[in-house]
Amino acid sequence: MSAAMTNPPKSHGRLAVRPTLRPRSLMEDNPDLVGNWRARVITLFPEAFPGVLGESLTGRALAERKWGLETIALREFGEGKHRNVDDTPAGGGAGMVLRADVVSQALDRAREGTPMDRARWPIVYLSPRGRLFDQATARRWAAGDGITLLCGRFEGVDERVLEEYAIEEVSLGDFVLTGGEIAAQAMIDTTVRLLPGVLGNAASTEEESHSSGLLEHPQYTRPAEWRGRAIPPVLLSGNHAEIEKWRRAQSEALTRDRRPDLWARYRDD
Amino acid sequence: MSAAMTNPPKSHGRLAVRPTLRPRSLMEDNPDLVGNWRARVITLFPEAFPGVLGESLTGRALAERKWGLETIALREFGEGKHRNVDDTPAGGGAGMVLRADVVSQALDRAREGTPMDRARWPIVYLSPRGRLFDQATARRWAAGDGITLLCGRFEGVDERVLEEYAIEEVSLGDFVLTGGEIAAQAMIDTTVRLLPGVLGNAASTEEESHSSGLLEHPQYTRPAEWRGRAIPPVLLSGNHAEIEKWRRAQSEALTRDRRPDLWARYRDD
Repeated sequence: MSAAMTNPPKSHGRLAVRPTLRPRSLMEDNPDLVGNWRARVITLFPEAFPGVLGESLTGRALAERKWGLETIALREFGEGKHRNVDDTPAGGGAGMVLRADVVSQALDRAREGTPMDRARWPIVYLSPRGRLFDQATARRWAAGDGITLLCGRFEGVDERVLEEYAIEEVSLGDFVLTGGEIAAQAMIDTTVRLLPGVLGNAASTEEESHSSGLLEHPQYTRPAEWRGRAIPPVLLSGNHAEIEKWRRAQSEALTRDRRPDLWARYRDD
Repeated sequence: MSAAMTNPPKSHGRLAVRPTLRPRSLMEDNPDLVGNWRARVITLFPEAFPGVLGESLTGRALAERKWGLETIALREFGEGKHRNVDDTPAGGGAGMVLRADVVSQALDRAREGTPMDRARWPIVYLSPRGRLFDQATARRWAAGDGITLLCGRFEGVDERVLEEYAIEEVSLGDFVLTGGEIAAQAMIDTTVRLLPGVLGNAASTEEESHSSGLLEHPQYTRPAEWRGRAIPPVLLSGNHAEIEKWRRAQSEALTRDRRPDLWARYRDD
């Protein structure tokens, strides 16, 4: 019996509550998930998953097995009595660095049953040093079979394991998080909602900010008047062409005003 | 007895487990939290908090009351039997819009006991239409007393409530999330780790990516050789000036290569 079979990744789909005495490997005995997009997350905090992903649309889709989430506890591969996963940085400095030999074992576990083609199954390290995550990255990932996300903590991970596994470094933005877990959840959320059947109304994705390259226009709903503020009359006119025109103008003005970088790109397209 | 006192925000600090029969308002009866930075989150999914924020450094600091986290359940302010919080967009279109009259009640609740000066206590709506969140935003927030974060879902929130409360719109990045909860957690994490006493080793914040304006240099740790890959000899030389020089050169090369935008800004400073 392989190590992987004695201790499979924790699954957060409905498979997690289907009891079985037969140990199962990642794919072959999970027929319900074959063909569905899966995220495998290597983390020191598996209990933080699914977190927000277990709620709302992503949570419902997870329960309906439209996607799968598996956590791989990095601690399990740690060394010695204390299951150490890190050590002090070579050359000195503050913090601790995740060990290449420990991380590689978790990566090998995560790789079981996945396609070797990185286009179909990217391996990503969440890192402020990476390329910025955006909607286009999510679209690319959603077109594959799944993804492995390595969550760092401390000062980072030994560079050699990033090189050895040709890992893609992706950053959530220009800010420093305590670890990769929140970034992983953000990226999974963005990707999962692009999968077929996850959003109830497909039109919804298309109208949202960043899908059209413009920021979304203002929205209003009942009551028609609130604290002396009325809904713009055009929206209540029933004239769909005028409504469309007003919304487009609002989107353009907002984008020009708040995000000159997006506006420039939009104008160039 | 005011409505606020019968139903105070759910607290995730140690106060949450201190039983009391006396209803308490937000600040006056929470003396342990006075002077400490607090986040108030208005959300449809209060159970998703603290989530990852309850782990690791931020979790320890939360337990030690170095910061406070309170959730305000938007559903509580909903209308009718089903506690509706949203309605269809005026002018048509997919999705639902959070109602101004419902959201304003939650905002009023969140405002109790907080300074009116927005520099000391910003009110933020997590929205892909907002200004991009970055390390400078986190530094500004960390210098205040706390923050109120409004998490949207669906197609957004009625524009009038954003205007009426002069709410700051902030975006986590150029991607679409199912709701604001993950963005709120990312922003709270980034801010909390800048608070005094939260990071064990203050040097750690300063060396990290985006604090210096450069991406972080590669890190290595034991073993000295792994899968035929050795730690760069300079890091084992004990020559601190040379190590510093090597790291700086690596940071510069990485930034130039991966983030020409950051590199340009760094060169201009």
